[in-house]
Amino acid sequence: MRLRKVKGAEEKIINSNYVIQNAEIHKGNFKEIFSNNNPIYLEIGTGKGNFLIENAKTNPNINYIGIEKYNSVLVRALEKINDLELNNIKFICDDADNINNILSNEIEKLYLNFSDPWPKKRHAKRRLTSPEFLSKYEKIFLNKKNIEMKTDNRNLFEYSLKTLTNFEYKIDDISLDLYKDDIKNNIPTEYEEKFSKEGKTIYYISVIK
Amino acid sequence: MRLRKVKGAEEKIINSNYVIQNAEIHKGNFKEIFSNNNPIYLEIGTGKGNFLIENAKTNPNINYIGIEKYNSVLVRALEKINDLELNNIKFICDDADNINNILSNEIEKLYLNFSDPWPKKRHAKRRLTSPEFLSKYEKIFLNKKNIEMKTDNRNLFEYSLKTLTNFEYKIDDISLDLYKDDIKNNIPTEYEEKFSKEGKTIYYISVIK
Repeated sequence: MRLRKVKGAEEKIINSNYVIQNAEIHKGNFKEIFSNNNPIYLEIGTGKGNFLIENAKTNPNINYIGIEKYNSVLVRALEKINDLELNNIKFICDDADNINNILSNEIEKLYLNFSDPWPKKRHAKRRLTSPEFLSKYEKIFLNKKNIEMKTDNRNLFEYSLKTLTNFEYKIDDISLDLYKDDIKNNIPTEYEEKFSKEGKTIYYISVIK
Repeated sequence: MRLRKVKGAEEKIINSNYVIQNAEIHKGNFKEIFSNNNPIYLEIGTGKGNFLIENAKTNPNINYIGIEKYNSVLVRALEKINDLELNNIKFICDDADNINNILSNEIEKLYLNFSDPWPKKRHAKRRLTSPEFLSKYEKIFLNKKNIEMKTDNRNLFEYSLKTLTNFEYKIDDISLDLYKDDIKNNIPTEYEEKFSKEGKTIYYISVIK
């Protein structure tokens, strides 16, 4: 993604009630942030937030956390949500690399939507479904591990099928052409809306372990 | 596949040196048929034979067995091979259902190419990657289990990804659009040649356990 600097982004993020500051001090205790015992679902690379915000609106009994590295992107999510009163969604502005310092044994589902494909082999470790990242995720899940992924990038999807199954995940649900299937409850990301309209194949998978 | 009766098919099959008659008596001892210890690769639903015959020509140190249910189809494979002198390929005219009466602990790779998708849910058991068939295959492999599959049928491929990974197979190699990838050593089946020319997506997977 090409990033533009957004004036005042940092300040807006610091001042938003939707953003958890110093997230590390809540490690293992995020249910206190939401003041309930509802399941917590996580999206890494939450981007401009459409997916997570629409999920939060639709499912009030699920808590959502979105992690986004770039404040210039996260600020777009805040613009969408600032006028709403949602108690079940929070954002964290941080790098996915840092995930084990933030979350521990508390996530019930992880969403990876249209992640950066890092096409070069020497960058493979940076893909959010690399064995390195899958190892990190081991420690953030509460009990059963469930990852849902959507992408338009065929090579990233093929790579992820390999890494996930080699990591003992079983395929629970899969579509190799999501928009040709009968999808009732699918909530699109901003990318997904654009790409699916352009006729690009959207791949979807849900894996469990 | 719509089947035509082929006059004299049964007789041609009975008289061909390439066809193993009464295959069941060789169960567990197919290396004797080939008179060597080379690995044996199996194709179930070998159709008109192009895939297996070309493989046998290319890899003289691998033995190939092709199982085909319909004599009217298998006779087409025999027409292609009868003038050749290949010592490393044999056919069996039988139903895949019968596989455990024919083979035991002797196969090193199983090919499933463009298998019947059996699209109706109530016919799912007949798909060659159903849990029922995967259970049967357990007993035909020598040591490591390796299945390679190609199909143009998206739903069959999605179904197979689920059943295979739930059967503890790991994905070793995968392409969600084989003809867009750099495929050097791919040998097409008759169907594949037709479908890929029509621009259909061809899916490929290799799984190991």
